[in-house]
Amino acid sequence: MPATEFDTTLPSIRQLQNWIKQKATVEFKLMTGDVIVGKVFWQDINCVSIVDANNEQISVWKMAIAYMKVRSDAVVERDFK
Amino acid sequence: MPATEFDTTLPSIRQLQNWIKQKATVEFKLMTGDVIVGKVFWQDINCVSIVDANNEQISVWKMAIAYMKVRSDAVVERDFK
Amino acid sequence: MPATEFDTTLPSIRQLQNWIKQKATVEFKLMTGDVIVGKVFWQDINCVSIVDANNEQISVWKMAIAYMKVRSDAVVERDFK
Amino acid sequence: MPATEFDTTLPSIRQLQNWIKQKATVEFKLMTGDVIVGKVFWQDINCVSIVDANNEQISVWKMAIAYMKVRSDAVVERDFK
Amino acid sequence: MPATEFDTTLPSIRQLQNWIKQKATVEFKLMTGDVIVGKVFWQDINCVSIVDANNEQISVWKMAIAYMKVRSDAVVERDFK
Amino acid sequence: MPATEFDTTLPSIRQLQNWIKQKATVEFKLMTGDVIVGKVFWQDINCVSIVDANNEQISVWKMAIAYMKVRSDAVVERDFK
Repeated sequence: MPATEFDTTLPSIRQLQNWIKQKATVEFKLMTGDVIVGKVFWQDINCVSIVDANNEQISVWKMAIAYMKVRSDAVVERDFK
Repeated sequence: MPATEFDTTLPSIRQLQNWIKQKATVEFKLMTGDVIVGKVFWQDINCVSIVDANNEQISVWKMAIAYMKVRSDAVVERDFK
Repeated sequence: MPATEFDTTLPSIRQLQNWIKQKATVEFKLMTGDVIVGKVFWQDINCVSIVDANNEQISVWKMAIAYMKVRSDAVVERDFK
Repeated sequence: MPATEFDTTLPSIRQLQNWIKQKATVEFKLMTGDVIVGKVFWQDINCVSIVDANNEQISVWKMAIAYMKVRSDAVVERDFK
Repeated sequence: MPATEFDTTLPSIRQLQNWIKQKATVEFKLMTGDVIVGKVFWQDINCVSIVDANNEQISVWKMAIAYMKVRSDAVVERDFK
Repeated sequence: MPATEFDTTLPSIRQLQNWIKQKATVEFKLMTGDVIVGKVFWQDINCVSIVDANNEQISVWKMAIAYMKVRSDAVVERDFK
């Protein structure tokens, strides 16, 4: 079985599910140093699929994620930029 | 069992299968920083096999993939370059 | 199953639980080189959720943590800054 | 069980077996950035053993491989160098 | 289950237990490049807890350790510094 | 269970056992970029213990090894240095 657990009652899995429902803008910092920012489209045990500001759909492998957080300035950015 | 799950009903696995059928040009960013661009030839639980623009077949280990996304400019590139 | 063990009797898991109760300021050094400092909000088998000084909630994947330690200067920092 | 699957019917495992039979010159890009080029001597669930141009036998851990591909210019190199 | 094995009859686990008993000064080289030096306080399947020269307690995740060795100059350092 | 397999009939495990018996000088390239050179003292499922030229005993975690190979120049080095 994979390096992550996919039990929908886990806080880490529910958090991602909530971000999908809320259409939250989330920042993912990857092990490569890349930062992917976008809305979470779906997750499964292997990957998180993110749609970024250019409408590109990116499938990030969970094993490659260092951390993830909601972009608190996301609404402002969309309004004024 | 390996660090990834290979269940053909999973979105991450079906996405790769769809890319094979559609002959989509996909970009893979690896943990090494390398970017491999090409058409997906096959996948199994360990690897994704990619055929790049030089017709080289490259087997990428799934554990080494940070993210993957369809190249939206791929059709244009093939037409005008 | 995931790359970490989540048994609440383990010292490593209890230590995180104690930090939650004590509202300790903890430093997490990640595999990316990033240092995340904040209070531990929750943990599950995949992630540790941290609230930093800017009140941002960050979910760090356990697989990405190199080490963690209580900030001994945290109380002083809160008093005099 | 290890981070990779060793089922000899898998394409990724059969590919390595074919390279052994064909005495193909294969390039392995490792997570460290190292590139190992040589003929595959054996594989097991943990490692791939490669014999390079200096006749050195190198055991590469599969978990450390980012990608692998046949060197298309290998025959030419052996002929003219 | 985690990426490491925690069987107290294994040499790697017993070595850490001996270092705890002997209050040995041990150097841990991490995947991040960090070097942590100190006495081993406890270990479990996930982590090794180290107390360094500043009396800070650091929990290092085993998956993040590249190597570990006793500091042969540790006694001298404590005597003459 | 750990990220590596420890079955003493596997070529990768037997190779390490042979190096112990032959007191071979072996080079280990780690994921950190470090190169550890020495004689293999013992192995278990987690670690390989190496005694280097300074007689230091180093426990390398198998997950951190990129590749390993016998130093072909080792005898010469010991004779003439």
